[in-house]
Amino acid sequence: MSEKKYVKIAFTPVLYPLYKQENEIVVVVDVLRATTAICTAIHHGMTSVIPVQEVEDAHRYTGSHYVHAAERGGAIVEGFSFGNSPLSYINNPDVKGKTLVLTTTNGTQAIHAAKGSAAIVTGAFSNITVLTSWLSRQPHTVCILCAGWKNRFNLEDSLFAGALTERLLQNGFELDVDSDAPYASMVLYQQAAPDVYAFLGTSSHRKRLSKLDLDDDIRYSLECDVAPVVPCLKGEELVDILRIS
Amino acid sequence: MSEKKYVKIAFTPVLYPLYKQENEIVVVVDVLRATTAICTAIHHGMTSVIPVQEVEDAHRYTGSHYVHAAERGGAIVEGFSFGNSPLSYINNPDVKGKTLVLTTTNGTQAIHAAKGSAAIVTGAFSNITVLTSWLSRQPHTVCILCAGWKNRFNLEDSLFAGALTERLLQNGFELDVDSDAPYASMVLYQQAAPDVYAFLGTSSHRKRLSKLDLDDDIRYSLECDVAPVVPCLKGEELVDILRIS
Repeated sequence: MSEKKYVKIAFTPVLYPLYKQENEIVVVVDVLRATTAICTAIHHGMTSVIPVQEVEDAHRYTGSHYVHAAERGGAIVEGFSFGNSPLSYINNPDVKGKTLVLTTTNGTQAIHAAKGSAAIVTGAFSNITVLTSWLSRQPHTVCILCAGWKNRFNLEDSLFAGALTERLLQNGFELDVDSDAPYASMVLYQQAAPDVYAFLGTSSHRKRLSKLDLDDDIRYSLECDVAPVVPCLKGEELVDILRIS
Repeated sequence: MSEKKYVKIAFTPVLYPLYKQENEIVVVVDVLRATTAICTAIHHGMTSVIPVQEVEDAHRYTGSHYVHAAERGGAIVEGFSFGNSPLSYINNPDVKGKTLVLTTTNGTQAIHAAKGSAAIVTGAFSNITVLTSWLSRQPHTVCILCAGWKNRFNLEDSLFAGALTERLLQNGFELDVDSDAPYASMVLYQQAAPDVYAFLGTSSHRKRLSKLDLDDDIRYSLECDVAPVVPCLKGEELVDILRIS
């Protein structure tokens, strides 16, 4: 018999060190909008995404092969043409075939926190089905690392974590024995599932983004399976593991 | 017009520094079982409770006026007669009129983390109505600090936080603008409300306690208003603020 596999959730990066173990796969989640943008960029023809922590780090990558993107506080950083809007990477001939160098408020920071794990992949509603399938084929426990908002709990990442937990349990995973986060997230998701957009209406981050007129981004980010790739960190680059394995 | 008052929730002590602000009231919550025991001990005639962080600290208080209690991992620490079982403090002539010196795995640690706030009180289902009334009369934002389980999210404290959030919103408080924790907790509580005990059946901590044969403690801890006091830290002692103010 194979060993048991568990689903764990860290609601924010500051909690992640409590959960961190070698030999497990970390799914980094920043639904609004970093991990949605990463899936979208790769699905729509970018070769890879390099997540960097600081805005200055992005400038280290020079040459026409790179597209630079930086977001802070929900807006594109001055001097950059791209931020973390997934829609900006769809059917865009200026980015196709290129590598995205991306830094965001929460999402890219979370990717760096997870370094040292068996594998780091990014999750969003955009890739939930292929992600579930891929995780189910691996022999590892899964830790879902929600980027949150400045290390605080947020609703959209937790809802996605609940949706992924539900699917993983259907595929033989078991609930973490040390924390109730997966169960609570699943209950929340089941409440939200009939209309996630409406449920999120009360969330602090949707309100924050609404002020920035990003409603199309939000609706897109809540759609399932619009960007069926599994971005996985290889060296410093996120590449679609379904293509290389 | 008076200033707005908000409800904030830190799901575990490690998140609390992100929320901590002067001039707010912290409600420390460890439903299973430290804060339930504190309310119960005071309601049933103990004069006060001194929360201490380490087992050794308890021994600093000598004399027949003190009752010593220590819990780690759900069980009474060897050499102590009391732990954090609320039932042990009900109608017990050996403790009436005395001061409880208490150290627990999660709850008393959380009380110490909150030092420096406008006020620190302890909350549980046992005192939810009087606590809501008292908080509503104060001019301060409320931060609910869940003890959790070894700094991880747990269901019972989050459910209580949701129940208290719901009541505070009915009394003029508003949701935290920087985190979705109060809203999520309230949704969870509304799911659980018809039968909190059954809902908690899946929780990691209830399973942990069930192994220790503490089912009576759990059922008691989920009852509302069985110990209507508001334990508030004055110096190093928790005393019923309804009696002294």
